[in-house]
Amino acid sequence: MDIMDTSAESVRFALRGAVQIFSEESLQQRLTSGKQLKIKLGADPSRPDLHLGHTVILRRLKALQNMGHEIIFIIGDFTGMIGDPSGKSKTRPKLTLEQTRENGESYMQQVAKILDTQKAKIVYNSEWLNKMNFADVINLASKYTLARTLERDDFTNRFRENQPISLHELLYPLAQGYDSVAIQADVEVGGTDQTFNLLVGRELQRDYGQTPQEVITFPLLVGLDGKEKMSKSLDNYIGIAEPPAVMYEKAMKIPDTILLDYFILTTDIPEEEAKTAMQQDIIAAHKIYAAEIVKMYHGEPAVAAAMERYKTVASGAIPQNMQVVEIPLADYAEKGNKIGLLDLIRITGLAPSNAEARRLVQGKGIKINNETATDFQAQLDCQNLVLSKGKNKFVQVNFT
Amino acid sequence: MDIMDTSAESVRFALRGAVQIFSEESLQQRLTSGKQLKIKLGADPSRPDLHLGHTVILRRLKALQNMGHEIIFIIGDFTGMIGDPSGKSKTRPKLTLEQTRENGESYMQQVAKILDTQKAKIVYNSEWLNKMNFADVINLASKYTLARTLERDDFTNRFRENQPISLHELLYPLAQGYDSVAIQADVEVGGTDQTFNLLVGRELQRDYGQTPQEVITFPLLVGLDGKEKMSKSLDNYIGIAEPPAVMYEKAMKIPDTILLDYFILTTDIPEEEAKTAMQQDIIAAHKIYAAEIVKMYHGEPAVAAAMERYKTVASGAIPQNMQVVEIPLADYAEKGNKIGLLDLIRITGLAPSNAEARRLVQGKGIKINNETATDFQAQLDCQNLVLSKGKNKFVQVNFT
Repeated sequence: MDIMDTSAESVRFALRGAVQIFSEESLQQRLTSGKQLKIKLGADPSRPDLHLGHTVILRRLKALQNMGHEIIFIIGDFTGMIGDPSGKSKTRPKLTLEQTRENGESYMQQVAKILDTQKAKIVYNSEWLNKMNFADVINLASKYTLARTLERDDFTNRFRENQPISLHELLYPLAQGYDSVAIQADVEVGGTDQTFNLLVGRELQRDYGQTPQEVITFPLLVGLDGKEKMSKSLDNYIGIAEPPAVMYEKAMKIPDTILLDYFILTTDIPEEEAKTAMQQDIIAAHKIYAAEIVKMYHGEPAVAAAMERYKTVASGAIPQNMQVVEIPLADYAEKGNKIGLLDLIRITGLAPSNAEARRLVQGKGIKINNETATDFQAQLDCQNLVLSKGKNKFVQVNFT
Repeated sequence: MDIMDTSAESVRFALRGAVQIFSEESLQQRLTSGKQLKIKLGADPSRPDLHLGHTVILRRLKALQNMGHEIIFIIGDFTGMIGDPSGKSKTRPKLTLEQTRENGESYMQQVAKILDTQKAKIVYNSEWLNKMNFADVINLASKYTLARTLERDDFTNRFRENQPISLHELLYPLAQGYDSVAIQADVEVGGTDQTFNLLVGRELQRDYGQTPQEVITFPLLVGLDGKEKMSKSLDNYIGIAEPPAVMYEKAMKIPDTILLDYFILTTDIPEEEAKTAMQQDIIAAHKIYAAEIVKMYHGEPAVAAAMERYKTVASGAIPQNMQVVEIPLADYAEKGNKIGLLDLIRITGLAPSNAEARRLVQGKGIKINNETATDFQAQLDCQNLVLSKGKNKFVQVNFT
């Protein structure tokens, strides 16, 4: 076994940004005991595209892993396979075992960008939950009261507002909590929206005669809109697999008011350093953050190009490093070396269909050599040109 | 298959005393369709001593069986085996599979005094409930909302009064309701206290694509105290296995105000006939009822003796038909043909111990030849005598 890192500095770093700890004292004790701990994270495999929001917790796990602790990812395939039997939630479609496993693998591949997945343990909770029979479920359910369950915010609200709560929904927190019993977790981490479920795990462990796990909750990263929690469906996210230029540009758009949270929750830059930078020059601070993120996910060499590209786009000029599409001139000889604008847009991949290409032109979204195209019926000479869509998609078209 | 009795008179007789029917119209339709129906009764095998309270429903089932329908007894061994995992209810101890089966057999032996158990079907619900896994339970639980479950009276009250309700308790009604799905019940009967559970079965059948069962509820017979529902633990019961004289005497004690219910719910005597008898002479009406009950459970010949015994006891005289205990005179020759009063009380079975025998004498509860014994240290001559305890326990002691 590795020698455990129990230094106060490492403990502080692992807990950076934590919102609540149950309980602080006993967590400190365990983290400095020199014993390797089992740290649990419940993963939702149904949405495998990771963004910076997901990295908030993953980076803390990385820190804990670096200290020598064992990170255990619980892929919630059990509930995934059941879906929502009442059919009320569209966000929880029924998945096959294979789909769930594929999602789980894709999820872990992305996690590998943040921490060492070889050292981590990945388990599927159907392993134990599928083995439980009705009597086991009754036994499990007997450990928890209705009143406690209804303390969960969303249940409280729905119950008060007379919105239906199906009985099976009350069982999900128990299933998730039982995961902690099954793996004998020492610590569970999660977003603040998971506090209730994490505490269920803690209490169930007590009922099953185990030492209750420590619970650490972390904030939900607010998205680029400055309002909602970062999510792909709200399109307010920075994906960790996005190209350097996109990442850099999106990072520049983070509202000033939440930039410090991004520093603290998604980078290693010390809080004081970030604060000082922001006080001195907020634009420069954004650039420091953007460069840091690109470096983290694409490496140092990608940073300069991303910065250059951002500058060029921001100034409205045509950037140097752009996609090149070559079109055989011979194909248009019959048509007098003319090409329809809509065909060109489609061929270069700026639109999937002529209809969509027309909408783009009508919406003033297409430029030819940096001048807005106005006539969607235009027939262009087959000469090399730069075609662009919006502010940051540029294609160099070469007729050969 | 037997020819089904669909006469209006038989239908009326089968429903005699019913409190609620869901739904009346469709039940009438099914009972007169000529099709054999599956009639479900959920039996509790943990309290197998049957009394008149249990017969209220069993007698209706007999009427339905006589019409040609199939009676299905569901022995709830599943919940019996689980017990109350929260340990809050002392009335639900955990039973082994063997205990539950034994209880079930003892229950059916007693049921045989009322209807033809050879024609009835007996099933144990662990057959299907034990096969359900966690996913099946979640699927089952998704069919029912919390709000509906909390409509059950006892839940409503406990929830309002902030008394804890364990989550597993919410699952029991579903398990019982699922029994109806498993056997595809056409009709379920039960006491008015079971109305909620019976309706759950009805709704679950609908969810599982079956024709919902008809539900018929019957009153809970009030016990001899005139207040509480008849039960062995409250000692306000008439057991169907009790001796004729005990049965007769207890029947004479039924409060006048509820005697008509006893006629309607526990005998075949027509309501009008019972009413007329009660109006003419309430004591005579009691005698009619008492004689009827003794006849039903012990046969016509037992009635005269039970009546005679009752008359004698009521007049304070020593009855003719009493238990005889023979004591070998030789055993007391050494002691000068004397026997201690306490020994005598114990030997005749009127008390389990000398200490209890002493308490009886001190409480003026023992008579020798119809005279109250006062000295618990008395040494009696070994001569034949009548020993009695209270008003109705008499023993003829013969020294031989």
